[in-house]
Amino acid sequence: MKRRSFVKGAGIAAAAGTAAAATTLAAPAIAQGRVEWNMVMPWPKGTPGVGVNAERFAQRVIAMSDGRINIRTFGAGELVPPFESFDAVQSGTADIMHGTPYFWVGKSKAFNYFTTLPFGLNAIEMPAWLTYGGGQELWDEVYADFGLKPFYAGSSGLQAGGWFKTEINSLDDLQGLKIRIAGLGGEVMRRVGAVVVLLPPGEILPSMQSGAIDAAEWIGPWNDVAFGLQKVARYYYVPAFHEPGPGLEITVNKAKFDALPADLQAIVQGAAAATAQETTTDFTYHNIQAFGPLLNDYDVELRSFSDDIVARLGEVTREVAEEIGATDALTQKIHVSYIDFTRKAAAYQGSFDETMLRQRRLVWA
Amino acid sequence: MKRRSFVKGAGIAAAAGTAAAATTLAAPAIAQGRVEWNMVMPWPKGTPGVGVNAERFAQRVIAMSDGRINIRTFGAGELVPPFESFDAVQSGTADIMHGTPYFWVGKSKAFNYFTTLPFGLNAIEMPAWLTYGGGQELWDEVYADFGLKPFYAGSSGLQAGGWFKTEINSLDDLQGLKIRIAGLGGEVMRRVGAVVVLLPPGEILPSMQSGAIDAAEWIGPWNDVAFGLQKVARYYYVPAFHEPGPGLEITVNKAKFDALPADLQAIVQGAAAATAQETTTDFTYHNIQAFGPLLNDYDVELRSFSDDIVARLGEVTREVAEEIGATDALTQKIHVSYIDFTRKAAAYQGSFDETMLRQRRLVWA
Repeated sequence: MKRRSFVKGAGIAAAAGTAAAATTLAAPAIAQGRVEWNMVMPWPKGTPGVGVNAERFAQRVIAMSDGRINIRTFGAGELVPPFESFDAVQSGTADIMHGTPYFWVGKSKAFNYFTTLPFGLNAIEMPAWLTYGGGQELWDEVYADFGLKPFYAGSSGLQAGGWFKTEINSLDDLQGLKIRIAGLGGEVMRRVGAVVVLLPPGEILPSMQSGAIDAAEWIGPWNDVAFGLQKVARYYYVPAFHEPGPGLEITVNKAKFDALPADLQAIVQGAAAATAQETTTDFTYHNIQAFGPLLNDYDVELRSFSDDIVARLGEVTREVAEEIGATDALTQKIHVSYIDFTRKAAAYQGSFDETMLRQRRLVWA
Repeated sequence: MKRRSFVKGAGIAAAAGTAAAATTLAAPAIAQGRVEWNMVMPWPKGTPGVGVNAERFAQRVIAMSDGRINIRTFGAGELVPPFESFDAVQSGTADIMHGTPYFWVGKSKAFNYFTTLPFGLNAIEMPAWLTYGGGQELWDEVYADFGLKPFYAGSSGLQAGGWFKTEINSLDDLQGLKIRIAGLGGEVMRRVGAVVVLLPPGEILPSMQSGAIDAAEWIGPWNDVAFGLQKVARYYYVPAFHEPGPGLEITVNKAKFDALPADLQAIVQGAAAATAQETTTDFTYHNIQAFGPLLNDYDVELRSFSDDIVARLGEVTREVAEEIGATDALTQKIHVSYIDFTRKAAAYQGSFDETMLRQRRLVWA
């Protein structure tokens, strides 16, 4: 779930001429009371976790509506380039997308809060804030400026911190460390002295092997093992400080959503909530299953950052978040609401879930 | 979410004559292709968390189907007594219910696994196991014997361990302790030497005040504060070892579900998944919000059981679970699948979420 993660796949699709061919199919059509929607996504169709659940959403809407909404899905580059999904739905070239808000932070820094913040909300707290804490209204407001209506579509879950060739025992060990890390996490790492390198996924493995980079974060056990990162670095730092529960979105052209009759609106909204449930649990299930083999089948050592490293990363995170919040009045309102709930969640979960997970680990070890 | 939790509310409804009046409305009807369903639940309508989300489910199905399925909801005692929901849907007196499987463990001990086990799966892992780990197929199999089709409907989340008048510093302190605790947690407490007292909710507060009991668990901060338990005991032990993420159910008479056309089946199934998402996050949101005031506004001391107490509770939990698993071949199959996933989840989350929650607590403290 990195902005550059799927460029390579998209490139292949485009090279094969799929993008050009699909464009001729792209004109939206409404016939006999049926709604024909084109759904774009910034990842290839069939990508585990994200691509698969995007297609399940489309199938669910078709089934629930008995085909009154027909959704045709287009993977990265098949209808529009992968990082033009937002523009495509805004302009009407596409009608709906599956994605994640921080892919479009060039439009508004406020979008960060609807994907994730370092040391921010997890995969249950994020939709809790959206649904019951006023977050959805704020998201609606900031997306309405672009003619879009967003729905929460689940999370890829708590990410892994990444693969390191050497141990990181102090802040000194981060000085000059060449690390591939995306988003706000990269900004925080840069400010504590690391050299942040942005690389498309296809270059991560060779760059680790050649020594061009010293460390790289990707997603979590399920996707990391499939990617082969355990073969090029020994130390697996978990969890990610920077992505505690990145959120996905299903976003519709607002005018087209508003034009739907009430039952079809309820179906789209309900299907998105069902997709949220199924997507978060999909990543959770497969990360749990992948974790044992990752540790047992490879020469991997599990590590976590020490408390003094965490304290400094936290300090810089708060600085970065304050700066984002200061962008404009609406972003400030979002920032205050998000951070207030994060502080309360951190206190509550520290006493509840953290203790439960620790006790349960002791019982089943 | 205790079997006896809502008897009092139900009694009030019955006393007011609601149950008698509702019975005359209860005959299911199908007119002009419309499906008329009666939905029962073991809690009063409007109960925060459970009752409210049951009604939201009904409203969602009506909206999605444009009224082709009309669901009339009946709180505890309005159509049938609160703990006869299962029988009512089986017999056809009602068509669908909102509830939780361990209310009906008199039918089959296997039902325990579809609500919760001490030190078991949490509110994300449980639906992960159901959807991707074969749990749903096992649940379908065990409920099919009763003519029922179950859907997961979310969780009331990690519960609190309970309110204690005195500190529990060792296993000795549990000997003879008179505690109100429900379900398998009660059985585990009994085996380590406590005196387990079953009390309907209305008697908990006076029994704590009179000294008839020394401790009582209820739900979590949101519901506990509303209940007033912080006024009768000083030590709040968190979290609950016995209910890490109790699951709720929406269960339909299987013949009636199978008779629906495919689109209405997809609507019922999708609405249940959406309800799962909204219910788990509802409890999460409100527990987070309630936690600060609980600590700040009352003379409450937060405590957790020590590692040696947890180790003993865990040992006894494993014994109890083994005994339940030995009931019959199907229950054994469910037991093995559930415990295998719990062990893997405990290891994974111990490295991932436990560490994240600890680090995040340090950052925002």
